[in-house]
Formats: sequence, C-alpha cells, structure tokens
Amino acid sequence: MVAPSVTEASGVDDPALTAPTPTSALAARIERLAGQARHSGIDAMVIGPGADLRYFVGHSVSSHERLTCLVAGADGTARLLVPALERPGWSGTPAEDLGLEIITWRDGHDPYSVVAALVQGAAVLGVDDHLPAVHMLGLQAAVPGSDMALAGPAIAELRMRKDDAEVAALTAVGAAVDRVHGRMPEWLRAGRTERGVAADIAAGMVEEGHARADFVIVGSGPNGASPHHAASDRTIKVGDSVVVDIGGPSPAGYFSDCTRSYVVGGPADPELGVVHEVVRQAQAAGVAAVVAGGSCESVDAASRGVITDAGYGEYFITRTGHGIGLEVHEHPYMVSGNSRILEPGMAFSVEPGIYLPGRFGVRIEDIVVVGVDGQPLLLNNASTEQLAMPAARDGGMA
Amino acid sequence: MVAPSVTEASGVDDPALTAPTPTSALAARIERLAGQARHSGIDAMVIGPGADLRYFVGHSVSSHERLTCLVAGADGTARLLVPALERPGWSGTPAEDLGLEIITWRDGHDPYSVVAALVQGAAVLGVDDHLPAVHMLGLQAAVPGSDMALAGPAIAELRMRKDDAEVAALTAVGAAVDRVHGRMPEWLRAGRTERGVAADIAAGMVEEGHARADFVIVGSGPNGASPHHAASDRTIKVGDSVVVDIGGPSPAGYFSDCTRSYVVGGPADPELGVVHEVVRQAQAAGVAAVVAGGSCESVDAASRGVITDAGYGEYFITRTGHGIGLEVHEHPYMVSGNSRILEPGMAFSVEPGIYLPGRFGVRIEDIVVVGVDGQPLLLNNASTEQLAMPAARDGGMA
Repeated sequence: MVAPSVTEASGVDDPALTAPTPTSALAARIERLAGQARHSGIDAMVIGPGADLRYFVGHSVSSHERLTCLVAGADGTARLLVPALERPGWSGTPAEDLGLEIITWRDGHDPYSVVAALVQGAAVLGVDDHLPAVHMLGLQAAVPGSDMALAGPAIAELRMRKDDAEVAALTAVGAAVDRVHGRMPEWLRAGRTERGVAADIAAGMVEEGHARADFVIVGSGPNGASPHHAASDRTIKVGDSVVVDIGGPSPAGYFSDCTRSYVVGGPADPELGVVHEVVRQAQAAGVAAVVAGGSCESVDAASRGVITDAGYGEYFITRTGHGIGLEVHEHPYMVSGNSRILEPGMAFSVEPGIYLPGRFGVRIEDIVVVGVDGQPLLLNNASTEQLAMPAARDGGMA
Repeated sequence: MVAPSVTEASGVDDPALTAPTPTSALAARIERLAGQARHSGIDAMVIGPGADLRYFVGHSVSSHERLTCLVAGADGTARLLVPALERPGWSGTPAEDLGLEIITWRDGHDPYSVVAALVQGAAVLGVDDHLPAVHMLGLQAAVPGSDMALAGPAIAELRMRKDDAEVAALTAVGAAVDRVHGRMPEWLRAGRTERGVAADIAAGMVEEGHARADFVIVGSGPNGASPHHAASDRTIKVGDSVVVDIGGPSPAGYFSDCTRSYVVGGPADPELGVVHEVVRQAQAAGVAAVVAGGSCESVDAASRGVITDAGYGEYFITRTGHGIGLEVHEHPYMVSGNSRILEPGMAFSVEPGIYLPGRFGVRIEDIVVVGVDGQPLLLNNASTEQLAMPAARDGGMA
C-alpha cells in the first residue's frame, strides 16, 4: 500500500491502473449472475479460468489441464472448485474475501464428479464460452442428464455494462496507451524494422503502466493494408504510412486498444493524405454516434457511410468496433446486423480503416464509453491528425 | 536470413532457437495424424488455435471469437479454415508452403456449416483438448449426427515423441534458461522484493533468447513452500531459501522450464541444507531413471523413494514431472499410476521438491530427454548445488 496523496492521481501512479474490484461489487455481480441464469433458463453455470472468472471472483489462473471453476446456481449459490495444489495461490485473493466456499480436489481424483454433485438436477448446465473441450466433454460425461448451453451470452449481459470502477480502470489504461502513442517519435523512423520498433513500443507500454503488451501491430507501407498484420522484418522507408495498433492489460486486468496511423517523413503516395482525412472523419462520425438509445449497427453505419460516400467502401473490410474490458475483444460488437441498443457503461472501440492492397492502410481507433449522460466519453485523446515521424534519427530526411 | 557461420552455433545466436519446422516434417506429422485417427476410431478431427495447430501446420494465431481450425480426415485429407480477415496473416507461413487448401469464411457467415460439409458422414468427430466451448457447441449443432470425442490423446501420441529438430529446439532453449540461472547473482539478493527480482529475471530471459517469459516463480522463505506461488511483494531476507522456477518459449515455440533453489547469505533454518541435499539426490535419482523401457511412474518412484526414505515423503506434494515441447505442460506425466513406457524422444521435467509449510521449500527441476541410445539426455546443466546469493548488493552480509 502507498500512502494516500493529496495531489490528484495521474500517469503511471494512477491507482485505477492497479485497484482491485471491491468485494461488494463482486458479490453484486454473482447475485446478478443468478438472475441472468434464471432469465436464460440455465440452472447452473460452470465458469473456468479467464476473464469471466476474474469478473466474478476478482482473480483467475492460467488455464492448465487441471479443472478450476466457479459453480454458480440459478438459486444464488456459488462455490469455487480448485486443484488442491493451487489452493495456496487463492489465499488473500478477493475470492477468499468474498466468503465463497472453496472446494479442493486432488490429483488422481475426478473433479467432474464433484461438479456433478454440486449441480445435481440441473436440466440445463451453462458453461463459459472459453471452457476447453477436455473439460466440456468431462462434464458432459459426468452429468449425462443435463443439456449443455453457453453461459457466455448471459454473462455478457453483465460484463458489457461497466460500472464506475470499471470505467475508471479503462480510463486509466486508455491514458497509459495515449502516453505510449505520444512517445512514438522516440521509436518510429525510417531505417528501422517493424519488429525493432514494436519491441521498443512493447517496453514503453510497460513503462507507461501496462502489465504487459498484449499486441503490437506495426504495419508499414503495404503491410498496413492487412488489418491483422503484426510486425515483420520489413524496414520502414521514408514516405511510408505506418499503422500502429497497440494494447494490453493494466495490472488490474483492464485492456487498452488504440490505433494511430503515422507517416514517415512526407507521404510517398499522393492519395495517403486524402485517405487519412476520410478515415479521420469516419472515425469522428462513429464516435459521435455513441449515444444512449442509438444502436451498435448505427455506430458502424455512421463510420461506414463516410467512407462509402468518399468512394472507399469496398476497402473498409472490417466491422467498426468491439467491446473491451477484461478482454480486448468482448461484447458488444459494432457491426451491421447488431441492433442492440447502446446503454450507459458500454465500452468499445471505434476503428474504421481503409486498406488498399499492395499500397497502404490507414486505421484510427479510440475506445469510447457511453457516458452516464448518454453522450460519448472518449478514453483516448492522442491526436488523430496524420502525424509525421522523423525520417531518420536526427529528424532530417534520409 | 543470416549468413552461415563456420563457428559452432552457441548462445543467443543458436539457430535452433528460431528455426521453423521443416515443411517435410509437418507433412509427415499430418500423415501420421491420419493413422492415429484411424487407430482411435475418429473419422475427422477439428484442431483449433494453439500448440496442436502449430505442431501440424507450423503456425498458429491467438484464439479469438472467430473460428480458425485444421480439419483433418482419417483418410489423410487436411484443410485449414480461417477467417477471411486473417487470411493475409497466413501468407508465407509453413501452412502455405505445405500446399494445404486454405478455406476462408467471412464475418456474418457460419463457419460451423463449412466444417460440417467437410466432415460429412463422420460418425466420430475429434476435437482438440483446448477447443473452446463456444466452438464445441457450434460444431455439435452443425453435425448433430456425429459423436464428439477428444482428439488430444491421439495427438499426444505424436507430440510426445520428439524428432531430432524438436530435441535441438528444446536443447537450445534449455541452454538459454541455464544462462539465465547463471546470472542469478545479478538479481537475487536480500532487501529486494520477489516481484522486483522476477521482473529482472523476465527481462534476462528475453536477453538470453526466449521470445518471452511465460512464468517466473520467485518463492522466498515460506512462500517457497507453495509450489505454485508466483512472485509477491515480500522482501527477501538474509537466510531465506528462494525457489526460482522459470520458463518460456523460444521464438520457435519450444519451452524451457528449470528450477533452482538458492539461499541468500547463509541459511537461517538449520534444516535447509539437509533438505536441499535430499532433493538434489532425489532429482538425480529421477534423472537416472529416464531410460528407454522404464516407465513414467518409475521416474516418479525413483525421486519419491529418496524423499520418503529421508522421512520427508508427506512434504513432496506434487507429481515428479510433466512433458514439455510446444506447451510447458503436455504428455507424458511422471506420476504414480502412469505405466506408459519411456521411448526415445520423450521430453519432460524431473522436479521433485520438499515443501515445509510456513517455513520454506526446495525444488530442483531439469528437462530430460530419453536419448536415441535410450539413456537420459539432460537439457539443463546449471549446478544443482545449494548456491548462496549475495546478502546485499556488494556481496557482503547485511
């Protein structure tokens, strides 16, 4: 614990980067989960390691071959099953503070029969979306009378509506990634490889308050035209457009995700400036559509309309955005056909792009929250202008 | 590509740290997979992102909500299904060199129906052990006439027998982690927190040739008595035993995993020296039992016998070892009840320990391969003696 400070928290010392979820909030989530289960016709849920488990009990573990899971009933009961070997690792975690019953099982015994006894009589057993097949089939054999269903949709109804502490956590890690983009001139210049730049960015992300870099996309020149390109040995050239899309979790577990598109020196392709400005306006239009009562597909349509009107519709080959929180991709998705209504607390990316095969790509991405006033709250505030990076170390043209 | 060198490869430049699997080896694995499928009564297999996919096609992706999978039939056919958006990321990977048919599917379409068409008529459909429930249930709905089974055991029969290139990859990353243990006096001393030491070790692991640190356990004093303790804010004291258990993948994807137990200054607990020597002899006995024709449980019994004979049996609370390769924990497991016969190419940890609750722990772990001559081949060669770390920065006693 650090001593409280009278100065306003900011930067890497922002307590929202590290603050654990209050036990009272976890208890409320587990209670709401029971309601969601009843609403979804699920009698009991089995939730394995990952973001869902962390959301409910404030802690998770790496998913190994040994079963760890929260077993939550529609009647409000909740128990945690952990391998005996890993029980000490749960000491002092919020799961213990919650007062959950923690049941252990030993190597050589069958954890599925323990779950079966806990969920006895469940007609429908929900499992979290990520539960591995090895555990799925183990459970199916142990509870042959139960139908298996995905608990993910019910859980997503809770997770997609962030409470104030979660918005504060996302705001803090959003500011952290903004600081990383602000340092791009230190790293991004002609003559370096994408991979070298990416390694420096990854270190900078940790310096600015991330627990780790989860992904670092540096897409220079034609590589930027592939939305999921990571980083290669390509040497960045004067005149290149460079898409830099980076994100990772804070120590508290909440993710950043922010893209800016830079140019090294002056643009080699005369169309680059035009494309950048179209994407910038499309992104702003998408952000402006993030209002309570609007819909997920209306955010997509707002961004897509600008790009289509400018004649680049066929080169905007992705959806416009994805929810974010304890996972970098979660509900809700900003995509055509998703008529879900936007509500305060929903947090997601707005990231239109134009991808010209063999030439370059431009993408601009911010995380936006529907504020309590129903208006968009931007969590990223780095400039969206087409910023020029040094052509060489001393800033001169190579 | 770097120019070939006439000097022997060593250290961080060892090409085995980065060498991709030859296409011919991948093709042979896919062919053997068909044989395993037939042997296991599985008509077709669906293998999602992860180590299994990487083993067969030389590349994988982060598991997202969009389905990526290898669909392999018992008839030897193999096709890769990938989201259209991610298709560019597969360009230039071994999967393309293999000449596999790569089928793409677009957002808004149903990938499970594509798989269903590919596996038409399969009575038993095998899925990899890690395939997430969301895909499992999607497949079950799309192929209602097929029984689902785990493909993991069949795949493990292949993966647990390493070929020469895999042994070379494991040897290279084993040497890398040995170099990290060799640098422990730079980092591990009294007055530092476990977490601070762990951060330095993690950076050192990358410097010595790992792609990343996957886990860094620094268990000082009583924390060492919990085998799965990670690293805490506890300040390391003079006289502490410190268990350092570290590992991570090489750029080629093969894992290291090596534990040494150090003492800071002189041991505070008079029993520590005795316990260290018992564990050291137990570990050597386990390594000596790694011979072709022996069994997994005989390795466990060899280590456990030494500890039990010394009167510490009840404090050796884990199995003796786990297989290692493209995953840090894989088959075979060195555990009582596993009568599997050891064969050349099997690679696994031998890691007995004694854990005295509230006091300290000692664990020593090496990766061992059953050599082509049927004898144990040690991939870790850092000293197993009880090495004393500096009590303070200048090496003097605090």
